[in-house]
Amino acid sequence: MKILVAGGDGFLGSHMVDRLVEDGHEVAVLDRFPDNRTRHLGHLEGRVRLVPGDRAARETAAEALKGQDAVYDFVCATNPAVSWNDIPLEIEQNLLPAVQFFEMAAEAGVRKLVFVSSGGTVYGPAEGAADEARVPLPVNPYGIVKLACEHFLRHVRAKRGLAYDVYRVANAYGPRQSVTSAQGVVAVWMRRILDGEVLQVRGDERTVRDYVFVKDIARLMTHSLRDLSSSDTFNLGTGKGTSIVDLLEIFRRVVDVPFRFERTPRGPSDATVSTLDSRKLLQHYPGFRFSDLEDKVRETWQDFRARHRCA
Amino acid sequence: MKILVAGGDGFLGSHMVDRLVEDGHEVAVLDRFPDNRTRHLGHLEGRVRLVPGDRAARETAAEALKGQDAVYDFVCATNPAVSWNDIPLEIEQNLLPAVQFFEMAAEAGVRKLVFVSSGGTVYGPAEGAADEARVPLPVNPYGIVKLACEHFLRHVRAKRGLAYDVYRVANAYGPRQSVTSAQGVVAVWMRRILDGEVLQVRGDERTVRDYVFVKDIARLMTHSLRDLSSSDTFNLGTGKGTSIVDLLEIFRRVVDVPFRFERTPRGPSDATVSTLDSRKLLQHYPGFRFSDLEDKVRETWQDFRARHRCA
Repeated sequence: MKILVAGGDGFLGSHMVDRLVEDGHEVAVLDRFPDNRTRHLGHLEGRVRLVPGDRAARETAAEALKGQDAVYDFVCATNPAVSWNDIPLEIEQNLLPAVQFFEMAAEAGVRKLVFVSSGGTVYGPAEGAADEARVPLPVNPYGIVKLACEHFLRHVRAKRGLAYDVYRVANAYGPRQSVTSAQGVVAVWMRRILDGEVLQVRGDERTVRDYVFVKDIARLMTHSLRDLSSSDTFNLGTGKGTSIVDLLEIFRRVVDVPFRFERTPRGPSDATVSTLDSRKLLQHYPGFRFSDLEDKVRETWQDFRARHRCA
Repeated sequence: MKILVAGGDGFLGSHMVDRLVEDGHEVAVLDRFPDNRTRHLGHLEGRVRLVPGDRAARETAAEALKGQDAVYDFVCATNPAVSWNDIPLEIEQNLLPAVQFFEMAAEAGVRKLVFVSSGGTVYGPAEGAADEARVPLPVNPYGIVKLACEHFLRHVRAKRGLAYDVYRVANAYGPRQSVTSAQGVVAVWMRRILDGEVLQVRGDERTVRDYVFVKDIARLMTHSLRDLSSSDTFNLGTGKGTSIVDLLEIFRRVVDVPFRFERTPRGPSDATVSTLDSRKLLQHYPGFRFSDLEDKVRETWQDFRARHRCA
């Protein structure tokens, strides 16, 4: 199958590319490729087609979309912390370009678009594991715009027949996660440890998140390719909550260099307990088991240490 | 109480102004007032303060918001038919200015903002009377952006403490409804009759809407002033469905001039059966009865005939 991965040189996107190549698909990657090289796709040189540029640029998008059966869209210009303080940026950089891209995909004859939404911010700070039947009550502009993108996909399907799947992903972690962004506590902590900085442990036993390993995400998102005419919305998380305090304990067992930390109170955009009920998706993967958090924090730590040495 | 009505010279807005003045409030009206005069507030000359300008203009908005206890926001730059074909317009003209206005209201120390949302487009084309616990699945960009505005009000409350109420209003009709806009079948039909044009009856017995009289809307929306610190979301419709065919029968009984009509199929943005369950709001109005549709179509027809003679 011919598949475009927009944002395919990023954290989630590059793992999706790995998976799709492994599964034998013909993969193109649309990304900015600053300095004219890939960040995370060097090992696939010659095996994927690179389309450099911005998906917000019409010509680039048209070139990338031509002839594709399906598109995975991982492009995201902000994160929840940035978005909280700059709504116009969120709307102009995330909402408008996404909707334009959806319409262009439909025009180009793409059969299905797969969109990465946000399980943590779309539902808002309600208690208990959210399933897809819960009324979304986002508070962070990041989640408000993700949810609006989901609705615009429903619009474009009604207007132009483009099928779509939405994955509301929980707290992703794993190798290649950006160390410069403020998003992703596992990556932020590892970067601080490697730079000799003090860890900020924001929250307490009640600050609970659903950490899901990036390769599990990529595997589960291949579900969309089984039927290019269906449209659906899925949670994608383990359903298991881990408190920030328990995560710190895992770090103390896994990280083989000394580090210091300090506790700080919860911020205004932190949901208290945020886990996802993903049974709707998992029924399509009988016997699937999520990776063990401690095992994969260890694997992630090896990746971060190796990258730190090269940098 | 000091109250600003943004868009207060329009159809819904001017009836709200009437009601608030009658209830003894000190009312200011922010509207564009083209040709330097009001469209619907002439009878209140000297009794309301007029602030001419666009709520998207920061200086105008700041001037209008200063010292207000509460704000009713009726400004809307599009309608569902326009929005269906121009998403960037919908986002740039309705979403961005609304969010800017919400943030400015919070900065100005306004205690509560009351926002008019859309019962017909926010829920999407599901069957049966929607209540507020239903998951909104909008398909029309107009409804997607209304829903995003609702979420941004939740954001601004969390960030800056501005309370809000949202009213998801059903199909409003009544005196003063615009005859130039494509929105509002009662007004569109009356305008066509008065201009000697053929009525377009779009849909059939299954094209059912919840028609609610504009003065009932204004009365029920005063609920927000009972507690300026509470925030909530309410449906506002009669809960009673009327098919387009039954509405035509009412017109045949009410309209005292001959007219012709033709039947056309449903369009893509028409929900089939769209009624609202408003019990959550109505519990605060024991004994309230909605106006009779035929009575009020007659009253509206008198208003349209009188305005047509003057024009």
